[in-house]
Amino acid sequence: MLATPAYDALAQTYLRLHRLGHLQSLAGWDQAAKMPPKGNGARAAALSEMAALLHRLRTDPALAETIARAEQEALSDMQRANLREIQRDWRRANALPESLVQRRQLAGSHCEHAWRRQRPANDWQGFLGNFREVLAIAREEATLLSQRQGVSRYDALMDRFEPGMTCANVDRVFGEVRQWLPGLIQQVRERQAQQTLLMPVGPFPVEAQRRLCERVMRLLGFDFEAGRLDVSTHPFCGGVPEDVRLTTRFQEHEFLGSLMGTVHETGHGRYEQNLPRDWLGQPVAEARSMALHESQSLSFEMQLGAHPGFVAQLAPMLVEAFGDQPAFEPSNLHRLITRVKPGFIRVDADEVTYPAHIILRYEIERPLIEGEIEAEDIPALWDAKMMDLLGIDTRGNYKDGPLQDVHWTEGGFGYFPCYSLGAMFAAQWFAAMRHERPDLDAHITRGDLAPVFDWLREHIWSQASRWTTDELAVRASGETLNPAHFKAHLQARYLA
Amino acid sequence: MLATPAYDALAQTYLRLHRLGHLQSLAGWDQAAKMPPKGNGARAAALSEMAALLHRLRTDPALAETIARAEQEALSDMQRANLREIQRDWRRANALPESLVQRRQLAGSHCEHAWRRQRPANDWQGFLGNFREVLAIAREEATLLSQRQGVSRYDALMDRFEPGMTCANVDRVFGEVRQWLPGLIQQVRERQAQQTLLMPVGPFPVEAQRRLCERVMRLLGFDFEAGRLDVSTHPFCGGVPEDVRLTTRFQEHEFLGSLMGTVHETGHGRYEQNLPRDWLGQPVAEARSMALHESQSLSFEMQLGAHPGFVAQLAPMLVEAFGDQPAFEPSNLHRLITRVKPGFIRVDADEVTYPAHIILRYEIERPLIEGEIEAEDIPALWDAKMMDLLGIDTRGNYKDGPLQDVHWTEGGFGYFPCYSLGAMFAAQWFAAMRHERPDLDAHITRGDLAPVFDWLREHIWSQASRWTTDELAVRASGETLNPAHFKAHLQARYLA
Repeated sequence: MLATPAYDALAQTYLRLHRLGHLQSLAGWDQAAKMPPKGNGARAAALSEMAALLHRLRTDPALAETIARAEQEALSDMQRANLREIQRDWRRANALPESLVQRRQLAGSHCEHAWRRQRPANDWQGFLGNFREVLAIAREEATLLSQRQGVSRYDALMDRFEPGMTCANVDRVFGEVRQWLPGLIQQVRERQAQQTLLMPVGPFPVEAQRRLCERVMRLLGFDFEAGRLDVSTHPFCGGVPEDVRLTTRFQEHEFLGSLMGTVHETGHGRYEQNLPRDWLGQPVAEARSMALHESQSLSFEMQLGAHPGFVAQLAPMLVEAFGDQPAFEPSNLHRLITRVKPGFIRVDADEVTYPAHIILRYEIERPLIEGEIEAEDIPALWDAKMMDLLGIDTRGNYKDGPLQDVHWTEGGFGYFPCYSLGAMFAAQWFAAMRHERPDLDAHITRGDLAPVFDWLREHIWSQASRWTTDELAVRASGETLNPAHFKAHLQARYLA
Repeated sequence: MLATPAYDALAQTYLRLHRLGHLQSLAGWDQAAKMPPKGNGARAAALSEMAALLHRLRTDPALAETIARAEQEALSDMQRANLREIQRDWRRANALPESLVQRRQLAGSHCEHAWRRQRPANDWQGFLGNFREVLAIAREEATLLSQRQGVSRYDALMDRFEPGMTCANVDRVFGEVRQWLPGLIQQVRERQAQQTLLMPVGPFPVEAQRRLCERVMRLLGFDFEAGRLDVSTHPFCGGVPEDVRLTTRFQEHEFLGSLMGTVHETGHGRYEQNLPRDWLGQPVAEARSMALHESQSLSFEMQLGAHPGFVAQLAPMLVEAFGDQPAFEPSNLHRLITRVKPGFIRVDADEVTYPAHIILRYEIERPLIEGEIEAEDIPALWDAKMMDLLGIDTRGNYKDGPLQDVHWTEGGFGYFPCYSLGAMFAAQWFAAMRHERPDLDAHITRGDLAPVFDWLREHIWSQASRWTTDELAVRASGETLNPAHFKAHLQARYLA
């Protein structure tokens, strides 16, 4: 084996970044799940200091030359893929001055902090005051990244979450969905209007819900020796691959939201827990992208979690957790979990109406970043698109409208498409699984989930960032992203 | 006001260290209180990376010159005291190479993690394998620090926890205690042998214990908006001054250990929560020393917690928490809390036998660091000293012997004396309080703890590191450490 001193030095630097990032991730989890309120000032200062420090390490001028030398070295395929990911990270970091990184952090945290009060107060005008600054910084970042990468400004922001994804691609995919989605929603709703539906009767004690969630996480293969479940206002999957921290939230009067949210986060968690151990600490061992991450959470929550065979396994667990009641009868439970109903809130949406929320966000944030519209144009566009896509009236209701999500407050433009791209990938993975083993549904129905996990481990989890998203999709399923599988899935589940 | 550019630059550097140290403290707390077992490797690597990074920042060659220039600037008294503490920190850091700091962190983490299984398994031989490495690194550190500071190796390690404390001082104080302690224990035990004692009858549900502990913490002034109580194997006070993380451990059959342990940690917690806000982030705003820290925990646990007036307030809370029973009658409860009985476990020891445990640790770890004995000599010395000091047989019982504490696993040599020095300071503080206001005990008895907290806030908490320990003791009580107050306290409480 030839010596690869430059590559080795880069790997060492990125291992250090990974280790310091561990402390950053943990502090972020703690901030959401454990931190008492008066700790926030010191925590924000600590995280900002760390962000500046990591940026300085990434933009060390010596790295450019080391990368150039590493390119000439005799690298293995994995090392080559790792170098590609290192270069990607290096390019993005070096496009941005430290002052912008700091201003972005400050403006985002300021806007997010005020938003916590503005949202319940329906205070769009107050929000606008802070949001204009967040938007201005995001446009500045987009311009710098787009100049460096030679792509459009929105493409440059989206690339942070889904490398290589372009508006041209999203337009093609979402444009197609936009054609058939409103009609499909209409058809499903007419069909479901004839169903009888029994609602579960609470209360559902929080302790029983927690035990149920942990039991379902175990059934789904989550390793509690390498992770935890805690409570936070907004559920998420945090921590590090070696120690995955999932969160949920409990309400005494309703348990399905928390349970299915936990199933969703468990999908993220298993991806992280099954990234290749031998390469952990290197960029090539990180999850490929946020669309692929959402494809895992939605494989769990939607493909598997709303599968009638899986729901039939949940039913007796609910009886054990809360006592028997007619609503827990498996076919009623399945009707509850697959109920389609247009609503204001994205995170509460069913899988059929969900893409409408995403298309709306995309059709607003893209022109916003490209400078074609301004922040004050958002409400009118929101109202028109909600009426157009879901037939609901949102006028004047900012808190359940553009103020409902945290993404824009923190400048996270370019993330939203990942949710629906993830849902489409998830449908594509299950189509590939069924093609490989036509008895897949029989396995799921008799409680044997191993074929699902084995396929995901082999084709997604263990592959981490070894390939581009397109390459990974082709290797896993024979084709790049094909939204036809998503449409076929919805038709099979909701109209068959 | 004159400009102080060099001092300002130093203050900025130490503010950065404080902010990065925040993430380190939090990760340490999480490691003990929340982390699942498989997370330990990554956590240890992250903490080691951070320790190395902080060490590099502290040993930046430019700092020496900045410190020299700051010494010439026109500083306020507080700035001058801060500069003294910065110099102290700088000197200690610059005595150690980065590789040692990193090896120390790794070896400590490794030994501690294995100890969690080795202790219940009574596996002294397994422990020795890791501990020899921890000891070798500690000796290396002691040698480097002692060369830099011109003091003995053990003095150099003790200085990390109690600046300026020397073996000569400890020998004088402990030597004196060793004279009268066995006789006093004997006297107290004979006297208590005639008492009737009702034992509380369990079980005591963990959830009720937790609520009781939190209630008592509130009574003692702990601010839950700026801190938490969680569970860990070995109780401690962690986190940061802005967000103090206390831990305890619960057992269903016994509640007093957990309750009084929580009272102890609350003393640490209030010190941290009341450090001077205006100076937080600078070394001068940190707690003075670990003996002073223990003087706060023991002011709470022993001086206040075992005070008959305070115990009378606890009694009705126990009745509310667990239901009424004869053992909760206040005078019986006081006899329980002040029961003197030689035992294996330091943290469970009463305040009369406690110094014996500390003297034993000191008499073993000092020659261990000075190279006069080896790790494998510990058990025999332990057995002999336990028999000599407390008259109990510890042969073969490693888990309740040298494996009982976490200090040595992490290389924390030089800490143990702080516990008993702290107990002596606590007695000295209460003597000073009673001298200033002779009605102190009447206040405590009628549930008014404010005079205690006010005195501690004024003389200890708010003073942080403004003075040396000796100066602080003189300003607070008119004299440096005087163990006569401790002896007088024990005689008054146990023999009067």
